[in-house]
Amino acid sequence: MRLVKRLAVIGVGLIGGSLARVLREKGAVSEVVGVGRGEANLKRGVELGVLDSYCLDPRDGVKGADVVFIATPVCTIPKIVAEIAPYLEPGCIVTDGGSVKESVVAACEPLMPAGTFFVGGHPIAGTEHSGVEASFATLYQGKRCIVTPTERTDPAALAKVVEIWKIAGSAVPLMDPALHDRVVAAISHLPHMVAYSLVNAVDGYDRAGADLLTFTAGGFRDFTRIASSDPVMWRDIALTNREAILETMDFFSEYLGKLRVMVAEGDGCALEAFFRNSKQKRDAIL
Amino acid sequence: MRLVKRLAVIGVGLIGGSLARVLREKGAVSEVVGVGRGEANLKRGVELGVLDSYCLDPRDGVKGADVVFIATPVCTIPKIVAEIAPYLEPGCIVTDGGSVKESVVAACEPLMPAGTFFVGGHPIAGTEHSGVEASFATLYQGKRCIVTPTERTDPAALAKVVEIWKIAGSAVPLMDPALHDRVVAAISHLPHMVAYSLVNAVDGYDRAGADLLTFTAGGFRDFTRIASSDPVMWRDIALTNREAILETMDFFSEYLGKLRVMVAEGDGCALEAFFRNSKQKRDAIL
Repeated sequence: MRLVKRLAVIGVGLIGGSLARVLREKGAVSEVVGVGRGEANLKRGVELGVLDSYCLDPRDGVKGADVVFIATPVCTIPKIVAEIAPYLEPGCIVTDGGSVKESVVAACEPLMPAGTFFVGGHPIAGTEHSGVEASFATLYQGKRCIVTPTERTDPAALAKVVEIWKIAGSAVPLMDPALHDRVVAAISHLPHMVAYSLVNAVDGYDRAGADLLTFTAGGFRDFTRIASSDPVMWRDIALTNREAILETMDFFSEYLGKLRVMVAEGDGCALEAFFRNSKQKRDAIL
Repeated sequence: MRLVKRLAVIGVGLIGGSLARVLREKGAVSEVVGVGRGEANLKRGVELGVLDSYCLDPRDGVKGADVVFIATPVCTIPKIVAEIAPYLEPGCIVTDGGSVKESVVAACEPLMPAGTFFVGGHPIAGTEHSGVEASFATLYQGKRCIVTPTERTDPAALAKVVEIWKIAGSAVPLMDPALHDRVVAAISHLPHMVAYSLVNAVDGYDRAGADLLTFTAGGFRDFTRIASSDPVMWRDIALTNREAILETMDFFSEYLGKLRVMVAEGDGCALEAFFRNSKQKRDAIL
């Protein structure tokens, strides 16, 4: 018997589409139904073989589903759970791929009818591209998906969500939702805030009409790849993980401020040590 | 006749080695002598066929050279020019690959004996790797090398340096040295300062002993690739382009500060517009 009989993917983009693809490829799902607002994208999902069928109304989409995966911008997740809750099958597991967990899990858990289960998750994977067209089966291979159970989480539902992500190729660390939000604020949300600010700053700094951005080399393009990420997704992340993001932004600004002092003072020893420490730490994660 | 008869490359790393490789490959140079302090690296350069020979003393290295390319950290360039000046052949052209131009050009031009010529240059290309082993002939293909003549620059020497970089595959815009420094501060030096600070901040922000850096995904690794760049090279850049770097750091901090306010106020419209503008500008340079 397959692990998942009928999977409903709400939000068939890079994240949702890639999970559907890999579970099909591994024979871990019998049927996938896609749910979304953009019919063209859903039709494309069927054409590409990512979906068996689709519907526009989430309440229809979850009928008969034993697993529901919500892969929409963060602010939408609790709204969708509220909408689908009365239509869930007994035993149904609802999980998500949102980049913020504390507020999402806290909002969704109380909405679940008795005998249905919510498990929060966050695959640490992605590209700057969006839509089902950008999805691919190996997106999660060798990555991590953080799953965030609470004391209310059903152990069997948790085990099934962990198994799904393992089949997708990911390691699956478990983490408290609040700790998760602070970890990803540092390693993901902060870098995005910095990259978006950097591109806007360089764009704004056009001192000499020199058309600065046309001079940029590969380093700049790599560095700013994440500044091409979806604005709505990132708006929602910034809105829902505010405290942790502010904390990491302030922490970063302190380091940038220290570096500014070294530059202003022409302190060669301190500069070299600062750069060397960064190089060592970064080389160590390759 | 080949464009360059005897090329002396002082500093045989990624930048110097790659120029030697491409000029040899294109048949634009008869002989390449490498000069440096690390004999193992120079020997490797000969083994790899990048160099015909090498020597450890720059004064010996420039004997008989019609073109000298200095590809060392920025602070070292004027010291080397001072050292080699008395040993240059009549008609010799000295050029460099330093990432900062105003101070380098101002220091080097007066050191040149009559009948020899200095032309400042800066290839906007590189990887995070160093040493002759990391060099390759196509590094400059499709890139830009900014050449920075002044009113003292000899037109024939300028034309030859431009020709060398065109043969290497680069477009060769001419730019005033001071403008160059402001342009590269924005597109290259600032991103490096930001990336180094980011890695150090994330490393330092280990709130929960969660070993944050091990959770990083591809986005973080791409984003911070430039934080693996050579610390000595970047120390020298920070020391010599201080004013422009401080100006762009302050400019960046302003943008980051604006974003901080949007996050703190939970201003969804402003956040989305900020992210959208960045995405549009960044997508436009791909």
